Order: sequence, then structure tokens, then C-alpha cells
Amino acid sequence: MKLGVCYYPEHWPEETWKPDAKRMKDIGIHWVRVAEFAWSRLEPQDGKLNFDWLDRSVDTLGEAGLSVVMCTPTATPPKWLIDKYDDVLQVDVQGRPRKFGSRRHYCYNSASYREETRRITSVMAERYGKHEAVAAWQTDNEYGCHDTVRCYCPNCEREFRVWLEQKYGAIAALNEAWWNVFWSMEYNDFSQIDLPNLTTTEANPSHSLDFYRFASDSVISYNQLQCKLIREKSSYPVSHNVMLYFGDFDHFKFAKDLDIITWDNYPLGMLEQSPLPAEVKAHFLRTGHPDLISLIHDLYYGLKDQPFWVMEQQPGQVNWAPSNPIPAKGAVRLWSHQAFGHGADVVSYFRWRAANGAQELMHAGLNKHDGTPDRATTEARQVANELRMLGKKQTEVALLFDYENLWATELQKHAQGWSYWGLMFSYYHALRSLGLDVAIVHPRSDLSPYKLAVAPALHLVDEALAKHLESYVNQGGQLVIGPRSGFKTLSNVVQELAPGPLQNLMGLTVSHVDALRPGISDTILKGDETLSYSTWADLLRPTTAEVLASYTNPAYEGAAAVCQQAHGKGRCLTIGMWTEPEVLKVFLKPVLQSLTIAIQDLPEGVRLASREGRSYIYNFNPHEVKLELQDIKTTLNAFDLKFKDQ
Amino acid sequence: MKLGVCYYPEHWPEETWKPDAKRMKDIGIHWVRVAEFAWSRLEPQDGKLNFDWLDRSVDTLGEAGLSVVMCTPTATPPKWLIDKYDDVLQVDVQGRPRKFGSRRHYCYNSASYREETRRITSVMAERYGKHEAVAAWQTDNEYGCHDTVRCYCPNCEREFRVWLEQKYGAIAALNEAWWNVFWSMEYNDFSQIDLPNLTTTEANPSHSLDFYRFASDSVISYNQLQCKLIREKSSYPVSHNVMLYFGDFDHFKFAKDLDIITWDNYPLGMLEQSPLPAEVKAHFLRTGHPDLISLIHDLYYGLKDQPFWVMEQQPGQVNWAPSNPIPAKGAVRLWSHQAFGHGADVVSYFRWRAANGAQELMHAGLNKHDGTPDRATTEARQVANELRMLGKKQTEVALLFDYENLWATELQKHAQGWSYWGLMFSYYHALRSLGLDVAIVHPRSDLSPYKLAVAPALHLVDEALAKHLESYVNQGGQLVIGPRSGFKTLSNVVQELAPGPLQNLMGLTVSHVDALRPGISDTILKGDETLSYSTWADLLRPTTAEVLASYTNPAYEGAAAVCQQAHGKGRCLTIGMWTEPEVLKVFLKPVLQSLTIAIQDLPEGVRLASREGRSYIYNFNPHEVKLELQDIKTTLNAFDLKFKDQ
Amino acid sequence: MKLGVCYYPEHWPEETWKPDAKRMKDIGIHWVRVAEFAWSRLEPQDGKLNFDWLDRSVDTLGEAGLSVVMCTPTATPPKWLIDKYDDVLQVDVQGRPRKFGSRRHYCYNSASYREETRRITSVMAERYGKHEAVAAWQTDNEYGCHDTVRCYCPNCEREFRVWLEQKYGAIAALNEAWWNVFWSMEYNDFSQIDLPNLTTTEANPSHSLDFYRFASDSVISYNQLQCKLIREKSSYPVSHNVMLYFGDFDHFKFAKDLDIITWDNYPLGMLEQSPLPAEVKAHFLRTGHPDLISLIHDLYYGLKDQPFWVMEQQPGQVNWAPSNPIPAKGAVRLWSHQAFGHGADVVSYFRWRAANGAQELMHAGLNKHDGTPDRATTEARQVANELRMLGKKQTEVALLFDYENLWATELQKHAQGWSYWGLMFSYYHALRSLGLDVAIVHPRSDLSPYKLAVAPALHLVDEALAKHLESYVNQGGQLVIGPRSGFKTLSNVVQELAPGPLQNLMGLTVSHVDALRPGISDTILKGDETLSYSTWADLLRPTTAEVLASYTNPAYEGAAAVCQQAHGKGRCLTIGMWTEPEVLKVFLKPVLQSLTIAIQDLPEGVRLASREGRSYIYNFNPHEVKLELQDIKTTLNAFDLKFKDQ
Repeated sequence: MKLGVCYYPEHWPEETWKPDAKRMKDIGIHWVRVAEFAWSRLEPQDGKLNFDWLDRSVDTLGEAGLSVVMCTPTATPPKWLIDKYDDVLQVDVQGRPRKFGSRRHYCYNSASYREETRRITSVMAERYGKHEAVAAWQTDNEYGCHDTVRCYCPNCEREFRVWLEQKYGAIAALNEAWWNVFWSMEYNDFSQIDLPNLTTTEANPSHSLDFYRFASDSVISYNQLQCKLIREKSSYPVSHNVMLYFGDFDHFKFAKDLDIITWDNYPLGMLEQSPLPAEVKAHFLRTGHPDLISLIHDLYYGLKDQPFWVMEQQPGQVNWAPSNPIPAKGAVRLWSHQAFGHGADVVSYFRWRAANGAQELMHAGLNKHDGTPDRATTEARQVANELRMLGKKQTEVALLFDYENLWATELQKHAQGWSYWGLMFSYYHALRSLGLDVAIVHPRSDLSPYKLAVAPALHLVDEALAKHLESYVNQGGQLVIGPRSGFKTLSNVVQELAPGPLQNLMGLTVSHVDALRPGISDTILKGDETLSYSTWADLLRPTTAEVLASYTNPAYEGAAAVCQQAHGKGRCLTIGMWTEPEVLKVFLKPVLQSLTIAIQDLPEGVRLASREGRSYIYNFNPHEVKLELQDIKTTLNAFDLKFKDQ
Repeated sequence: MKLGVCYYPEHWPEETWKPDAKRMKDIGIHWVRVAEFAWSRLEPQDGKLNFDWLDRSVDTLGEAGLSVVMCTPTATPPKWLIDKYDDVLQVDVQGRPRKFGSRRHYCYNSASYREETRRITSVMAERYGKHEAVAAWQTDNEYGCHDTVRCYCPNCEREFRVWLEQKYGAIAALNEAWWNVFWSMEYNDFSQIDLPNLTTTEANPSHSLDFYRFASDSVISYNQLQCKLIREKSSYPVSHNVMLYFGDFDHFKFAKDLDIITWDNYPLGMLEQSPLPAEVKAHFLRTGHPDLISLIHDLYYGLKDQPFWVMEQQPGQVNWAPSNPIPAKGAVRLWSHQAFGHGADVVSYFRWRAANGAQELMHAGLNKHDGTPDRATTEARQVANELRMLGKKQTEVALLFDYENLWATELQKHAQGWSYWGLMFSYYHALRSLGLDVAIVHPRSDLSPYKLAVAPALHLVDEALAKHLESYVNQGGQLVIGPRSGFKTLSNVVQELAPGPLQNLMGLTVSHVDALRPGISDTILKGDETLSYSTWADLLRPTTAEVLASYTNPAYEGAAAVCQQAHGKGRCLTIGMWTEPEVLKVFLKPVLQSLTIAIQDLPEGVRLASREGRSYIYNFNPHEVKLELQDIKTTLNAFDLKFKDQ
Repeated sequence: MKLGVCYYPEHWPEETWKPDAKRMKDIGIHWVRVAEFAWSRLEPQDGKLNFDWLDRSVDTLGEAGLSVVMCTPTATPPKWLIDKYDDVLQVDVQGRPRKFGSRRHYCYNSASYREETRRITSVMAERYGKHEAVAAWQTDNEYGCHDTVRCYCPNCEREFRVWLEQKYGAIAALNEAWWNVFWSMEYNDFSQIDLPNLTTTEANPSHSLDFYRFASDSVISYNQLQCKLIREKSSYPVSHNVMLYFGDFDHFKFAKDLDIITWDNYPLGMLEQSPLPAEVKAHFLRTGHPDLISLIHDLYYGLKDQPFWVMEQQPGQVNWAPSNPIPAKGAVRLWSHQAFGHGADVVSYFRWRAANGAQELMHAGLNKHDGTPDRATTEARQVANELRMLGKKQTEVALLFDYENLWATELQKHAQGWSYWGLMFSYYHALRSLGLDVAIVHPRSDLSPYKLAVAPALHLVDEALAKHLESYVNQGGQLVIGPRSGFKTLSNVVQELAPGPLQNLMGLTVSHVDALRPGISDTILKGDETLSYSTWADLLRPTTAEVLASYTNPAYEGAAAVCQQAHGKGRCLTIGMWTEPEVLKVFLKPVLQSLTIAIQDLPEGVRLASREGRSYIYNFNPHEVKLELQDIKTTLNAFDLKFKDQ
């Protein structure tokens, strides 16, 4: 377990570098990330390289006993590079070229930019690939930030056609897969296919889904280029920092090319941008919501089923949310340990010192604009003192997450309030409020380590996935399946009634789906208990399953809401409606008890997290909490955290 | 009275066609609409026609005893056609070309597209014009859907100038009519006139109104081309399916070219998109609001004063509203009979079978995605058994509707909450809640069949119209005139104080108009009764009229709100303010009583409709209703309907 | 003190001119503004001048004893002029050319348009520069209306680069000033710099701030061109009519080139567009909010510290707000005298007669569409009878206003609810509700006339400004400083911790700033009194200052909210948080008392204004008010006004 910091030596006078490094070391920092936006200083003019300053800076850090994460500077190509070509800038979904003057202003499919990337990456890999002070790499920075995954430029149009031809071989196959006979959208040739923006009305969702896949693959192949070049010269691990609640590319697929997944954790900005109700936002104003943060921790742990890093940890205010409150006293310590508890190996603060100018001028750092320590320094120092080595996470419950289901359901929301992230959050929140650790994994991953697997919206399903899940249940696994599952094939079309290939496992069909306006809710009956739901209802028609609860609305004609059936040594529970965590818990608790998974009802804002070697009990509330759980009897101050070391 | 269905043989394997046809017949369906989106199958490549499959499909339907509505496929030109020309795609109001990939992607003023239309329409008219299984035509599909009436491309710019030159002859006449001296907008020549989009601030509303007229005429002349070509080869009636609450072209003018008006009735999508309050939307969640539906029925009956068809009737969920609830059990029967009660000759369900892919995949049909019957099948069968032949509607009350007044008042709303549709709905709702049938007619149509004519916002008035209305009143008609009437000439400018040429008839002038922010309401006094209004107030200054109610606000300086005067054998009542149905009824009831028109106060959600041969009593409420009216004493279940046959 | 009217002889038949002029004189009007939109009538075709009609019209007015304000017609270049060049139309922030068809459709940096401006202005200056009936000039009309200050066309790109080169000399200086090292935004050459629109994410705020300055300077230099040409031929004073709550160009800088500042006062449109709460808008529905109006009066008086004109005074409804209520009876009189009380020399009504066509058809005038007097005529006549000559305003309190602080803080709002105008309004409202007159001046102006100077958001501060303020306080001035002050240098970057160069004067530093979501409020403690704030908090850390109130939130770690320190003969009070007027008054009252400035607590909607010769007491409430102040005991009717003549 180590701390780190993001550092921009190019922003500060050289005489400050040495004292900065000394103070970093003194605080207890181990890692220092550099250079991800430094291209204009590394190459002020085309071909005129100037790495001396970076050499000296890295040496200074190394001499202070710090380890450097070296970044490729490709997120910010300089103006001379942009002006040299006419195919580097992106085109937005409105068809407008996106200009130079901020960052991420390049198209992943620009041949020119790939060539420039090759050149600068090779230079850096060569120069720092075996440098003693360097110990890890980061490619680029926050791929996709500012809506840059999906670019609508001529490069992308051309490459999309190539991608489609590789996927489908013949145009007739594409026409059939996309159901292009509808509205005479059939093509005679791949060269006729446009990008799916600015169509008269919505484009074919199969067309759009393939474009999303292509755009995701474009990011991945661009990143592979960088990884390959680095690895040719260096054996240090390669990482990239992904973002929160960002699903424009497939992170599971992307993660395969990296040694370390890192992410950028800004709890207050995340809270402000979330759709949580105003009173929840007010309650967690200065810490963020604990589950909103840890859902992302657990998801990114799951990308490679291994510890991750927080590459950028909010140390004070951010500048980019609509409003930007100061974190609570203690929040930085809380967030840091929460990350470790959920499987982080490194927490690295963004940034060493607040920027004195430009877009992020209002963003706090460990130090203020004048270089004096800001309050996060104190908390970081305390965290450094509290660290110890930990092992892997140990969890009995898995939540199944798939980026393609995010795309497919949100391309056809059908109910205004539908949100794939929102449904995931509802399940995740329910499980964590029961004191459980949760692994987040891809549906096609090995589920055998888990007693329980929960699949909230398993929308696109083929035979292989159905068999994979049946086999899990047959061997004793407990599966919980949520709404909209098994509705479509991977082509984003319907082949048989939902749940399609899952019908045997679930023992039911879905006769209809109901999609309610925000503000409308309705009820189900479980025995004589009335429970509510909103937004979405799958009308379940059991063939072999047992009914646990039914809808009360006569328009549903007696449809079941929740069903269960045994299958081999295991069982499958289907929850047909979108519902809030409190109602989910009504159905999940008996399942957990039957699996002898220990549950503990936690108060709002209090959570547990366990890792080999240490358990964490943390309180995100602005008030003291007395805990009287079975194993844990303790009092937590506001924003406090306790350890239970093993 | 017949049922129909929309069918896409090109979507399904040929072996299903015969059993499909048999089942249609068995349910009680008579009409089957085909081919409106089939161009890419009829002509997969330029000039390579392939009608064999359509021939076989039509034959199959005919052999089963079904009658075919044959459509021209022009709503969806294939990609090869789009690529062949550079002048077919539309340009949107933002100046962006609208791409291929959905539907309605053609400009009505493209010479190339008119030529292609001529070619394909002639082929179809020749092939099916006398086919025994075919019995009617539909041109294109839903002209104007997805904001496609008003196109901002170079074709339209060029043709707009021609249209203006034909209308005005000399540029000086246009400058004067548009009041172009204001802001130095005068032109020297027709060739200088741009389309009225992307101007620095709003364009001249006279310029915009003429552009709306031109765009409307473009749709009409495009449709005339198709009608003419079909009629050269066929004597079957020609129809087109228009949309709900859609006013971008003048349907009265358009209707003259057609034999049958048909429309597409989607009550739940209509409700979701309406501005009705959330509690009303919740109450009518699964049926839609009855008056929202029947206002459109009555309007389209009025287009030709003859029975219309519902060409597309919602049979389950739609896919295109923000949220898409399942209809109530019984709603499909209710909607079907409501249509017949309001003057439909045919109700045709959209669609036979749910689409397995593409944009409308989430839209229900009579059958599910797997081809098995969905619940609407049961209700359609029941409707078929309940049908009988009916005559014309019989109504004593006319509501005057004019698309140009819609355009002119909404181009200069003046009050944020102003809506022409909204005001029409308010009057219509008041009348129907009194148990009345309502004819909706153009202001210049023959009004002699009606005891009462109601004109809510008769904004653009010339001498001829004033004379027409005076003559109606002189001969004993009762006219009710609402706010904003007589304000402008047909050029969209003011020539004298409102009500302009109507002043003699109304016996008053309008000294000022007040335009209130949403949320503000104020009061009028009728005797000692205080009534409220909002949004709009015409300040009436009677010259010869009698005052029935006055505004209380001192800013209005004693203006009258409601006035009345006798004229010849009839009377004219002026209601100066925008108001809710309950207040309107206070003024309408005495008028109706004086005309000996029988009224019955109906509960919310319950309505009556009458047609020669049968009366309908229907209940859109989700609860039982006991009716104790003068003529009708009965109990209606939730979503139930009763007949009173003559 | 005089009345005026805006008149468009070109809109009306020549036979009406003489009677119109007679009636103007009869009402008591002295000034008549003409010709600002008349270009297409003055020059119907390129080079074919036709000034005869204007000559005759001016003669007619002069013969009636009226004085003419002659306008250059450059706000509306005719279509032939636009078509003659390809560089006149503006390009909007979305990159779209803005078309002809309304007004203000020219770019200030178009060389062609400057040439045409030179030509037409010279012709007019020559023709009317010594005309007896003419007595003043207006350049153009409402520079910047419809978002036209900031144009994104190639002219502006080119000129922006020139402007930057003149400002910075070397590109390295620009890179450093803008902190372009951040995100590798460094340039090698001025020719590389784009306009800051359509960047991938937000542009560098230093880049944007310089663009705003450049755009402001473009308006100013365009106006200088006109002033210079007029003055070559005429000695009549030159004016321009600026707008309400409009800050896109620097009015202090702009005002230097003019002899008279005039503005366009539309209280009801201003209220509708303001962010005031719905209940305040309802209360002041038919008068507007008095402080919303007089803040602008006082600001524009302050531009040159001399009486201004209201060039366009709302006389009835406007047409351009979302909703447009009728003014209260008496409102026109109230507004007119309010203007005189706040320092107007002329109030000129817009317009003589309502336009019968085009964009402003729904805008009232002194006369109705048919030429008969509208109600404002009566009130104008009364005002004329009540006028007397007055001297300068006499005020002890100054509010410091700077357009660059408006731009800089709104470019980086940080809190969603931040508004520079809103904060100014809060302070202004507090001061006026205490019965005080307020001078609004630029921070760098001579403050010695004022006992108290209030600086709500003095964001950009350099050494010179700090010294200027220190000197004011040293000599006995009382300074009140609000949030966000001293945060940045003029380059829009941070050089030292806030308040930067003001630290010595204020005796504190700002350790952090808190930026709260709308709806969140928190508290401060002043002694044992709890007061609330919202939106913004500067966390004050006194070095030498005394603490008057502290924040209660533990996240602030004991920070002070309000501090005070003596400095030389004066004192400086710092109010760190955004707060409502009632809380501001708690801190301002003791300060005012210590300065022996007399205060009087006024009821809502009642205000005082004083000018040498006359004091005004006015009541904007829709109800009667009994005043029992120290000096003033009187009863005011609804919308009434009383004078206290000296």
C-alpha cells in the first residue's frame, strides 16, 4: 500500500523541484506521476525534442527516493502538430470540428496521429524505459473524457466501414443482422454506410450499437499501439487512468492490455453530477455517497480481478462540477482508506500544487497556489502512517456488469428514467447496506468463486452465455436476474420472446414489459405484504418457476413480478421490476440466509469493507454513529474510520 | 365499419404469409395495408425492379378474402437513390444536412426526387391499379413526421422565391405586405430573399408565415403528383395517413386532393407528449385522455366532412414516447369504438406483428415478436363482432379550426403559455364534458348546419371572412369568439384595431391585450360571481355590445371580459380571456340552453358520441362509474363501453 | 429635464407627419429620435441616395418646435449591401453564419462594413451636422443586442491575432500570461491562435477573457469611427443607447467616446428575464422591481459621472419577453420620474406609434396601431407638466463595478448560482432599502467624494488598484469588500493567495473558497446571532484584522466570515460570503452609523431618490403605503409618487 501524487514540474521553477521532492517524501508519498500533458515542453517545435528538463526532474525525484510513473503526453498534442495535418481534430456528433485550445483534441483513427503517437511514445520508452527512478507507465490520460470516444470525422467513417466489413464479411449479413429491411435501410455495399449521427430521426439501434463497439475498439487499438511500443523498451508495468461512471468504451476488453488499472476518484464532483435526490446530496455534501464511490472501486477491481490504483484522488475542491463545496475535515483520509479497503494498492493525490492558471485554476492540491501545504497534506500524512500491506479482497457475492448492456439498454431506454448505472447502483447499494463485500465481474467470467451472482440487466444474451450461467447454477450457484434480461441477441434484435436462451434457467417467459413515467409507482404483492416499484416491469409468465410475488395492476393480467426455480444444485431468482434498495433487500435477504452469507443491517452512510489483513468500518455521516452489530460494537465520529486488523 | 391491419410481408418468411392471412380473416380483419416502406425490396438497385414478392403477397391476402391498401414506398428512398443525387436530403433549421439511416430523408422540392417519385409511383399504379385484391391506395406515409415539412435546403430556397414571385408579382408588393421598411429589411429583387432560419434575431413573422405556407404547399403539391399518377391508372380511392396534434401543413387544403383521410391514433404516446398536468396523466395513464383523442377524430372528420379511417391504431405499447406504459385491458376495444363513434369507417391496427429489429423493435403489434397473438388480438376480435354499419355524425355545434391561425399565433406567442392546440382543447373539452358532439370545420366552410359555431382564436381575418360570419349570424347562427380574434390581416400585420373587420359583428374593439406569465391568474366578475383566467386577456371596449362580465384588475381600467350582442336573427358572444373549461362552461351553458341544445354534465373520463344508427357511452376511468343522466342510466366498468342502438 | 419620443417617419404616410409633430409638441415632448433603422429608405440601392423624405420629415419636426436626435442607420445594413460583400455577416459561437432578415447582422471587424459605415456616416454628418432642427446624434442602435458583441468569423480571428500581438509583443509573453504550459496549449506564433469557441472542452479562461476584451474593444473602435466622422462635421453632442443588464462590452471604456450616455429602459421585460423569485415577480408584475431599474440608472450615471438619458422608455407592453403583461396605471409616470430622480436629463418614449407589422408588432407606443392615443400619452403629458430643472445627484456611498470582473468570475463561476449582476443587485438592494442614494463607479475612479465605497467582487486586482484603494482608506474612506476579491491578476491567473495585493489593506488571507449548490445554505455566528449565507464563502484567515463573525461549519476549521481592520484614517470591512440583503444590512448599518450617513428603513417597493432641487418618494407596490419616516410622513397610493422640492 503506497501513496502517490500527480506532479507537473513543467509548471514550476526548477529551484522548487528539490524541496518539493523532499516534502513529498516527508509526507510519506512513494509514487509521483509526471508528463501526461507535457508535449509542448518536450517538443516545442516539430522534431525539436527537449527532454533535458524532464530528465533533471525525474532524477531529482529519484534522488529523493521517490518512484516515478511516466506518462506518454498524447492527451495534449501541441498546436504545431494539429496545424501540420488536416485529419487530427475530432468532429462532434453535431458535425462540427472540435478545435484546439483545451485537451483530448485528437481522433483515435487519424493515421497521422497514430504516426505521431508512435514517434513520441518510442522516444519516451527509449529514454525512460529502464530509468532507475521510473517504475511504471501510464498511457495518455483519461481516454474518452469530454465525449471523445465517439468521433464523427471522415477517418472514423472510413474505418467504421472497414470494421464492419471485417465483422460481417458480406453486406447481406449486415443487412440481416441489423434488420435493415425495416424502413428500406438496406445497403448494397459497405462503402454506403454513414456514421449514425444527424439522421432524420433516430438511427437504427443496431447500427448505433455497432458504432459504439467500433468506437470502443478504436480506443482499445490506439492504446494497444502505445502499450506495445512501451513494452518493446521497458519492463515496467503499464497503466491507464479511467474515469468514474464512464462507459463509452468497454473497460473489460480494454483492461486486458494493461498491467494495472487506475482510476480518478473525485467523490464530490461525482455526487454533484449524480441523479441522487437533493436531500441525499445535502446529507453527503462534503464526502460524497459511499456506495457511489465504492461501486467504481469494485468495478475496476473486477476489470482484472486484482488490486487497482487510484491515480487521481480528490484532495480538496474540484473545479469542474456545477458547484464545488469544500470536503469535510477527514474526508481525504476517509476516501484514501476506503480505496485501500476496496482493493487499491496505491492512492495518488491530484495534484501536488494548485495550478495558478488555465482551466483547472480552481482545483485544489496537496498544496495551495502559493506552495504552502493545504489541509489534505495533514490527512495524507496520517494515511501514510496508518498503511499496512494487505492481500486480495474476499467476497462471496458477484454483481455482473457488461458495457454492451449499458449501451444497448440506453440506446432504447423505453422508460425515461431507465439508467443502467442507476439499476446497478440500486443493487449494489442494497448489498452493501447489508454489510456485504461485492465483486463486480463480467457476465462471461468464471463465477465459481461466488455463492451468489446478481445480474440486474442482462440484456444481450446468446447461447454461450446462457450455457455459462446454467452451468454456474447447476453446480450450486445462486443467480439473481433483474429486469430486461435475455431480451435481445448480440445484434440488438429480438429472436424469441425474453428471456430468450435463459428461458430454461429462469423457468418463465416475459409476456410484456411496462415502462412508467417518472413519478408513477405501482405495487406487487408478496404474500400479504405490499411492495412498490417504479420505472420498469417485466411481466413474468412462469412455465416451471415458482411465483414469489405478483403484480396487482389489472392491466398486467395476473403476471408474476418475482419468480424462483431450482436448477441442478443451485437456484435462479428473477426480479422482474425496477425497484429501490429497500424492496430488493426483502428478496435478497432470504437468499443470502439460505447461502449462509452473514449479513448485517448497516445505518445510512456507514459501510464495511474487508481485505486480507484488515477490515474497514467507515462513517460518511456528518454526525457520530454508535454501531451495535454482531461482530462490531464501536462508536464512529463524524467522517471517521476504524480498522479491525487480523 | 371494418377493421384493418398494417402488414409488412417483406419482414417475414414467405411461408408465414398464408397462415397470417388466414388468421387475419379469422379475427375479423378486412383491410391490410402494405408496402409503404418497401422500396429497397421493390428496387434493390437502381432500375432493377423486383415486384414478384409483393405480387405473391398481395395474391395471398386476396385469396384469403382480404382487401389491400397499397402504399407508394416514397417515405423511405433507398441508399442508392440518395447517393445518386446531391439534392435529395433535407437541411434542418440549424443548417445541417439530415443524413440517411432512418426515414423521411427527402426534400419535397427536390426535382430529382420528384422524378424518382414519378417513376416508382407509375410502376406501382400500373401494376396494382386494377388488381382485384387491392381496393385502396395510400400515398407515402405520415408526411412531415420528424419535423420534415420545413426544409432549409437550396431547393427550398429557390422554390420559395418562385412561390413568392407568383404570390406577389412585384417585390414592392412583398415589401409592403411584410412591412419590410421596419429594420431596413426591404428587398430589391425576389432573388435576394433567404429562408427565415439562422437570422441574427427572430425573422419577420410575415416572412416566416409565408415560408410556412410555402412549405405546406410543397407537401401538398408533392402529394398531388402522386395522386395524379395513381388516378391515371386506378379508380381505387386514394388516402394518406396524417398525424396527431401535427399542424405543420394545412390539412384542410391538403384533404381536397384525397378521397379518404386517415390518421394514426396512438393515445398513450399522445398523452405522454401532451402538456396535461401530471395528475391527469396519472389518471389516464393506460387509456390516454378521451378528449385528446376525439378532438383529432373530429378534426379529421371535419377535413372533408365525411367519415375517415384510423389507419394506424395503437394495439399495445408504442416505442417512441419518453415512457411507454402498457394499455389497460379493454383500452384497444375502447379506442376502436371511440373512433367509430366519432366517424371512422375503418380502424386498422399497427402492426400485425412486433418488429424483431430496428427503430420500432419495442412497438407492440396484434402479435408478439414470436408471432403468437398478443392481447390486442382478443380485443380486436371482440370489436369485429360488435361492429355494425353507421351513417354520418349529427352535430349541432361547430368548432372553427384554421392552420394559419395556429402558425400566426405561435410565431408571436406573446405569452409563454400560449398554445393554439391548448386553447382548442380547452373549448373542446368544455363542450364534450357537456355531452355534446362537436364538428370541427374551417372558418370559411358552410356553417348553416350548426346552431352554434365557436371560434377560439380567429386571428387572421379579412373582409370576406367577416362577411361570411356576419351572414351566418344574421341568419340565426350563434357565434362564440375567443381571444386574439380579428387581430391581423392575412399578411400577418395589423390594419385597424382588433377585431378589425369583425368589429361590427362583435360590437366592440380590443383596446389592449394582456399576456401573463405561467402561474399568474386573475379574476373577472360576472354579476357577483368571481371567475378566474390566466395566460391571455383581450381588453374589450364595447361599442354596441352588452357586457356580461368585466375584469377586476385596475390596470385594465374597467375593460369588459365577456360581451354579447344580437345581430340579425342570431347573436355573437365574445369571450376575451384564455380560461379553463369549467369557466367556459359558465358562459356556454346559457347559450346552449337558449339554442335548445340538450346538455348533460358528464363525469371526468366519461363521454358520449353519436352517429346515425348508434350512440356510444364510454368510460376512460380506471374505476366503475354509475351514470344517472336524463336519457342514460347505466353502470360502466373501468375502461368499459356501452352502445345505444337505434 | 425634457421628454422625448422615438419616431419612424418612414413607417407612416407623409400626410401624418405634420399632425404627429403637432401632437408631440402638445403632449410636452421636446426630443424626437429618427432614422436609426432607415438605411434601406435612405439608400434603396447601392449608391442611390434618397434623403429627401428625411429632410422633409426633419423640417416638419423642426417647424413644430421639436429637436431631433439624428441616428446613423448602421444597425440595419440593407440586403444589397450584405450581398455585395462576403465578409459582413457575423458567425455565431456555434460556427454558423448569421443570416440577413432581422437586425445587427454585421461584424464590427469587417473592413468592408467599416468602409460602408464611413460612407453613410459621412453623408449624414455632412447633411445634418449643422441642421437647425437637429440637436444631437446617436450612433447606431444598441450595440451588442442579440449576442452580437462576440463574433466568431474570420475577420475577428484575424483581428484578434493582431490585437494579441499588440498586447503581448512576443508569443512567449502570451504563453506565460495565459499559463499555456497547462495542457500543452503553448503557441509558437500569434498566427496559430484560434478563437476560443468549439474547443473540445472549455477553453483556457485567460484565452477567453482576452477574447472578451478584444470583442469589447472592437465595438469601441467601431463606435469611435462613427464619433470621429460625425464630429468632423457637427458640434452637436453624440450619444449611443446601451441596454439593461448587458455586460458584453466595457461600458466605462466605451463611455469615454460619447458626450451623452443613453439607455433603453424596459422594466417589465427586465423583470420577466431576471432570476428573481416567482413571488417577487408576481408582486411587481406591472411595474418591475424598483431596484432592478435604478441599479441600471445609477450604473449609467456613473459611466461618466453625469446625467444620462433614457432614450427608449417602455410606454406599455413590450413584445420580446417570454410573457408581456400590461403596465399598471401610473407605471409610465412612475418610471419617468424615477429616471429623473436617478439622474436622467431626458426620458424618451419608445415609440410614437405601435408598428403595424414585422418583429415588434406587439410592442405598444404612445399611440395605438390606428394612431389614436394609447394610455401612456396621458401619463407622459402629466410628467411633462411636473418637470423642473434639477442638478447633479448627491451621494455618499459608491458601489464599485467593473465589467472585467463580470467576465472573469462568470467564466469560472465555480458555484452554479454565481452571478456578478446578482451579487451587485444584492448589495444595491440592501443600500437602497436603507433609503440611500448610491453612486456606481469604476474601482479605479476617484473615490474621494464618497464616505463609503463597496466592492462586492473585486476579482482581478493589480498593485496599482491595491494602492489606489489603500490610499482611499488611508485618507479616511470606509471600504467594504465582498467575496472573490483579490483572487487573480489581470491575466486571470493566481499569483499569490487571495486577496493578493489587497492583503495588507484587508489584514487577512483567504485559505479556501466554498461553492455551494443552489438550495444549500449554512450559517455564520456574529456574537450570539446566527445569520445565513449561501452560494459562496471565502474562508478568511485574519492576520491583523478583527473578526466580526465566523462560520459554524467544522469543514471550515474556524474560519472567519466577516472581518474589519482600521487602516490610516479609515477602515476596511470584508464580508466573505454571498448573502441576501437582510444579512448584509446587519453589517452595513453599524458602518453607516459610524460614518454618520443617515439611514431609513424603507418598506418593500418604496424608495427614495435625491437630486439637487428635488427628492422623489415612490411606491412600486400595488397597494397604498403609509410612510412614517423621520423626515417623511406621507401616504402613497398604489404606484404613486411624491416630490419634495427644495
